[in-house]
Amino acid sequence: MKNEKIRIGLVGLGARGLDLLRDVFIPMSKETVDIYGICDYDKEQLEKAARKIAESGAAAPVKTTDYRELVALDLDAVVIMTSWVSHVPIALAAMEAGKAVGLEVGGAYSLDDCWRLVHTSERTGRPCMLLENCCYGKRELMVLNMVKKGLFGDIVACDGGYQHDLRWELAKRRPQRLYNYMYRNCENYPTHELGPIAKILNINNGNRLVSLTSQASCAKGLHRYVQNNCAADDQLAAVKFAQGDIVKTMIKCAGGELITLSLDTTLPRAYSRGFTVRGTAGSYFEDTDSVFLDGVDDENHDAPQKLWGNAAKYEADYLHPLWRDYDAKGGHGGMDWQVFSAFFESVRAGVQPPLDVYDAATLMSISVLSEQSIAAGGAVQAIPDFTNGAWIERQDLVAGPYALHDIFE
Amino acid sequence: MKNEKIRIGLVGLGARGLDLLRDVFIPMSKETVDIYGICDYDKEQLEKAARKIAESGAAAPVKTTDYRELVALDLDAVVIMTSWVSHVPIALAAMEAGKAVGLEVGGAYSLDDCWRLVHTSERTGRPCMLLENCCYGKRELMVLNMVKKGLFGDIVACDGGYQHDLRWELAKRRPQRLYNYMYRNCENYPTHELGPIAKILNINNGNRLVSLTSQASCAKGLHRYVQNNCAADDQLAAVKFAQGDIVKTMIKCAGGELITLSLDTTLPRAYSRGFTVRGTAGSYFEDTDSVFLDGVDDENHDAPQKLWGNAAKYEADYLHPLWRDYDAKGGHGGMDWQVFSAFFESVRAGVQPPLDVYDAATLMSISVLSEQSIAAGGAVQAIPDFTNGAWIERQDLVAGPYALHDIFE
Repeated sequence: MKNEKIRIGLVGLGARGLDLLRDVFIPMSKETVDIYGICDYDKEQLEKAARKIAESGAAAPVKTTDYRELVALDLDAVVIMTSWVSHVPIALAAMEAGKAVGLEVGGAYSLDDCWRLVHTSERTGRPCMLLENCCYGKRELMVLNMVKKGLFGDIVACDGGYQHDLRWELAKRRPQRLYNYMYRNCENYPTHELGPIAKILNINNGNRLVSLTSQASCAKGLHRYVQNNCAADDQLAAVKFAQGDIVKTMIKCAGGELITLSLDTTLPRAYSRGFTVRGTAGSYFEDTDSVFLDGVDDENHDAPQKLWGNAAKYEADYLHPLWRDYDAKGGHGGMDWQVFSAFFESVRAGVQPPLDVYDAATLMSISVLSEQSIAAGGAVQAIPDFTNGAWIERQDLVAGPYALHDIFE
Repeated sequence: MKNEKIRIGLVGLGARGLDLLRDVFIPMSKETVDIYGICDYDKEQLEKAARKIAESGAAAPVKTTDYRELVALDLDAVVIMTSWVSHVPIALAAMEAGKAVGLEVGGAYSLDDCWRLVHTSERTGRPCMLLENCCYGKRELMVLNMVKKGLFGDIVACDGGYQHDLRWELAKRRPQRLYNYMYRNCENYPTHELGPIAKILNINNGNRLVSLTSQASCAKGLHRYVQNNCAADDQLAAVKFAQGDIVKTMIKCAGGELITLSLDTTLPRAYSRGFTVRGTAGSYFEDTDSVFLDGVDDENHDAPQKLWGNAAKYEADYLHPLWRDYDAKGGHGGMDWQVFSAFFESVRAGVQPPLDVYDAATLMSISVLSEQSIAAGGAVQAIPDFTNGAWIERQDLVAGPYALHDIFE
């Protein structure tokens, strides 16, 4: 495939799919990808996408409302951007049809689905990459770089969150995600925060997630929002939401590290992924965008506000190579461009992607395990070893600029 | 006792006791208290305290190295500032001797100790106040005021932490606290953060703490500090510390609220109690000293740094009455003065204190329960109802400026 365009099929052209078409796939189609097929069960969305592609001057893609037709086309890779509940069936069908899979983020509904991803990838030899854009975030990669260079010493604990007020989105736009708030109570979106943390802690490559406990607060935020912002006869006015406003999950790792996740999407707040990395020699705190290094910042121990925003001064030395002299291209400040570049590079090279099927299964499993823990009053849940023991000796096989296990200069 | 000085006995004249003598008891002895007896098992500390009192011009107190002699004196109240492990035996002896007890903060080592505090107070009729100064912190009281005035809507979740780098203190000064790091693994100091949260959530007055789970990270921070900062033949160099660097505890309340605590004392960082209050209409975040109100701060949803430090602008309207026109007097920025004023006022009035024996037992029990949870791999622990059902109808009986259940203007 060298020096040729990668032939891709796109499944799921809702809000996320159309944004990515505009920000990533159409710009990339000038040089690196050929948008060969598109699929959505909603014909209107399908036509919207086709029009955007036509306006860009690219060749007209095959159009279908049936993902089974799409995955049967002569494609190198399938990108899945549908609602969460259909991620796994489509990914399985694509791998069975011999295609590399790029899977948008979301949590799993059963452990069985996670295992099926792993087994199908192993049997077909087809890769399945979790498209976790936050692994390629500017700060996440800078901190990964600092960790790998030893600035923080041994890493002992990490925090992260999906802390994003989705009330308008859920109550007014009513995406399929809303059903999760009506019928489930769990860490329903763990990968934005856990993805970068997993790479820092070498999860599935010398370390693994061993167990978790989750707890949920009561559910009051979305109901109040609906009462205040929707019509009195709105269907949602009578809904008793199952999803707690705040869900916290504590994960223990084989290496003894403690990870704490927060899902926080139905109360008023400013956006933050609460990315926090704590080591024996230093720490990073996203909420204040600050670095604290042992022996460097001690004089400000009692004046934390003096450290607010000081992470910027580390960019000169520690910005990840991917972000040096990088004029951020489309989508979430450049993260989308980077993660899709990583995926397409791995497809071109015919190697495992930097977030492989074991990472996908591990990260996605947190949703269902947190659901089980909360349902059982906060009981400890074992996290399966989706590598079946290989994690102890396993090395991330990826090399090159998009590798997440080590920093190449 | 009206218009007379309150006659007090002080037990425990280590670092904390001597600081309080200088900052609180000696200044107060000019007007409101009579330091009638002092006690420490270390004669040197006892003499240091006696000298300070003599230098202040106050009358010489009775001196003893035996707390049983001290509690037998003709006192109104005993203030206990010893190391954690002796808090309960001395408190029990003081109540049995008919004295009101002011108990410095610390966690419990068994649930039985918590119950004995409750039963002894009930049987003797003597009050036992937990001297949780952070309940009287400037920001904690301002946020309590904002919550009681309804600005944050229904409170759904709170976070707090004792996030204080104690490595120097533990490794160089070697207080008795160090033993806890050598032999225990738990949330060993829960009350600074949980005290103010408990008052916001009406714990033991219409709400209660029901269950918890705790997890600990590995223990690496203190060992690394000893390696880098103590002599090679230092006894601590060979110590394998039991206490995890980070301990997180999730507590569920009867009202459905979720509380998350962090103990974080052996890694480099700046001080913070991480006090966070989340409601359906607004939130407060200590780490950025910021308030987010629904419908007010929405435009900064994606620019959280614009909110950093904005809590200061709420002081004009919401500073707690205790902090208005208050020229902060000695000790931890004024909190110590406030909490001892609250205790002595309650003794003078002969009423239950604002943090009573049920609050003391509840807050202190978190240490032993977190120890049990961690030992059991994160298993859920039931938190005893130390009020034996009375919490449902019970009202905090305190009135006046130091009440923590409501705000009197």
